[in-house]
Amino acid sequence: MGTLNLSKYFAGQNSFTFELIHQDKQARAGIVCTPHGIFETPIFAPVGTQACVKSLTPNQVTELGAKMILANTYHLFLRPGADVIADMGGLHQFASWDSSILTDSGGFQVYSLAKIRKVDQDGVTFRSHIDGSLKRLTPESSIQIQEKLGADIIMAFDECADPYQRSYIETAMERTHSWAERCLNVKSRNDQAIFGITQGGIFPDLRIQSTQFISSLPFDGIAIGGLSVGETKQEMLEMLNISMPILPVHKPRYLMGVGTQRDIIEGILRGIDIFDCVLPTRLARHHSAMTLTGRINMMNAVHTRDSSPIDRECGCYTCTNFSRSYIRHLITARELLAGTLLSIHNLYTLQKITGLCRLAIIENRFSDYAKSFSENMIDRSKQKLRF
Amino acid sequence: MGTLNLSKYFAGQNSFTFELIHQDKQARAGIVCTPHGIFETPIFAPVGTQACVKSLTPNQVTELGAKMILANTYHLFLRPGADVIADMGGLHQFASWDSSILTDSGGFQVYSLAKIRKVDQDGVTFRSHIDGSLKRLTPESSIQIQEKLGADIIMAFDECADPYQRSYIETAMERTHSWAERCLNVKSRNDQAIFGITQGGIFPDLRIQSTQFISSLPFDGIAIGGLSVGETKQEMLEMLNISMPILPVHKPRYLMGVGTQRDIIEGILRGIDIFDCVLPTRLARHHSAMTLTGRINMMNAVHTRDSSPIDRECGCYTCTNFSRSYIRHLITARELLAGTLLSIHNLYTLQKITGLCRLAIIENRFSDYAKSFSENMIDRSKQKLRF
Repeated sequence: MGTLNLSKYFAGQNSFTFELIHQDKQARAGIVCTPHGIFETPIFAPVGTQACVKSLTPNQVTELGAKMILANTYHLFLRPGADVIADMGGLHQFASWDSSILTDSGGFQVYSLAKIRKVDQDGVTFRSHIDGSLKRLTPESSIQIQEKLGADIIMAFDECADPYQRSYIETAMERTHSWAERCLNVKSRNDQAIFGITQGGIFPDLRIQSTQFISSLPFDGIAIGGLSVGETKQEMLEMLNISMPILPVHKPRYLMGVGTQRDIIEGILRGIDIFDCVLPTRLARHHSAMTLTGRINMMNAVHTRDSSPIDRECGCYTCTNFSRSYIRHLITARELLAGTLLSIHNLYTLQKITGLCRLAIIENRFSDYAKSFSENMIDRSKQKLRF
Repeated sequence: MGTLNLSKYFAGQNSFTFELIHQDKQARAGIVCTPHGIFETPIFAPVGTQACVKSLTPNQVTELGAKMILANTYHLFLRPGADVIADMGGLHQFASWDSSILTDSGGFQVYSLAKIRKVDQDGVTFRSHIDGSLKRLTPESSIQIQEKLGADIIMAFDECADPYQRSYIETAMERTHSWAERCLNVKSRNDQAIFGITQGGIFPDLRIQSTQFISSLPFDGIAIGGLSVGETKQEMLEMLNISMPILPVHKPRYLMGVGTQRDIIEGILRGIDIFDCVLPTRLARHHSAMTLTGRINMMNAVHTRDSSPIDRECGCYTCTNFSRSYIRHLITARELLAGTLLSIHNLYTLQKITGLCRLAIIENRFSDYAKSFSENMIDRSKQKLRF
């Protein structure tokens, strides 16, 4: 969809480029080159927290159309350790993933997963969620770890704070800014791009301040951080509205941790280029199928004898081979294949959505597309299907 | 391996044929045709208990070389029910598996899984291991269920008993014989083959009697039942030695539930054509890799920084793409992909072994092959790796 001959953009280069191809109001279509290939934006990147997209082989992830996956510095630092992965030739070789990889910096997981954490000006000391052992991450060590992992895009080490606590948010934002500079200073590999992360919670003045500051630094892209962490949907969109006009036009924009169909559309509408989220694979493990019109609880007895696929219009491996009846059977029989097949379908669906969005942008009809997409969404979430 | 042009054996036929191509002492190379394709014997059939080979897509099962899978009447009768599968077009369509399928009759699972069972002359009443509900299987209902499921090969309903209790074994054997005749009488589909099952525990006279009786009936193939259920290895092999000379030459012989590398070789040496076992996928879920020389516990710390594949000589997807280091990481990180990758490797290994055996048979050097195979086996089982 929206296919172009991409070969001119790529000559086995070692550096990162982003080219804005077309803009339809705020919505953007771009092309990113990394040392591991080219991808079109907007893009959704499946999450491979521990160097694998849960329950899928890299072949399956490639087949469903993904061009970039995300891996987690926090998790890989704890297990198996960055040195092990470096010894094995880096993340691409370790996970047998030939396309692009982005690693987050660990900042968010320290906030969300670590048992006890103590933040100081220099970094964060925390207890591992795996074995309780005492660990420390600093801007410098996060970058060093990410350089050992060897992703194509690495992230600055940030402090993600409760979005409503202004005084804490202010301190965390200041620290994030000083850490951003330290990350840029310590970065040594030229074949990795680095993105900065904005913070500021739900406070417009802080958001503006953070977006201005991070945008002023020589990052290759900018991520909007500290969202999708407990604030309301309206607050999230408002923070996007505030941030977008400040962001540099010619750098890709990455909305971290966002992955519902609706939020992706809303993000693209406001100028976001890159998304990632655990949602598609997590919903899959909880029996939920994502479609262009909402979610379907595949465990529901209504599917028992339904010979149709999850989505008749879907071209994924799951929908072209299996009935709702079979998927429901796998779920009730507790077969792990259920999660695999639903993960394939859900991730494919988000690839399809971002692809359709790109096409609509290139054809200057994205706001119509977004409107009709939104109207077609059936809010099954109110029927307690929301995960 | 041992490839022949098979097309002459298959013309989209609806019936089952077995052709003995070559014999090297007792070891046999054959060709089986079913309405869903042709396969060479000896063959190992992966087990897809609940209409799926655990943690693998049908694509992956096909890619690793499997030509037939086994599904379980007992499990599918309880969940989702034979009528559901029939409504969905039968097992092949339900599970999206285009090659051959064999269903066992439920006799063994009633023995091994059902909570309380009461056997009478007419059949078995038992409590479902899933919800404790009262269920009943008879020779007639087992065949009716298997006809609804629609596998290419179905099995007679037998009574599997404790191999050491002579008086019980005698009664169970008599019942199995009368049930075998009833199964043949009730069978109505011409596009399904039916195999009889011999019983007799570890008692030579009963084995002879059962093998003679079952062989006298117009079954399309004969399974050696009631083995690999607690008797010693030596006893199992002796029962095979006793049974083999009695079995009709021109019917395939199926050793049920056997799946270690060594036992497959021993079975082939004695004239077995078909094997099935949950072992490869079960071992995979318990971190164990099967190779031509034994088993490897992939969780062992020795693999932490080992960049070599499980088996350098192996051509499976797992070995051609992933290091021992990565597989160990997936195991310690509790990623389900570990079980998937090990299942692929283990099943591929058994496909490779039966293929190499067939080649050695055709080249009249199977006893040498079996001897060197046995000598190369490292008995890691003594290092508590045995599952």
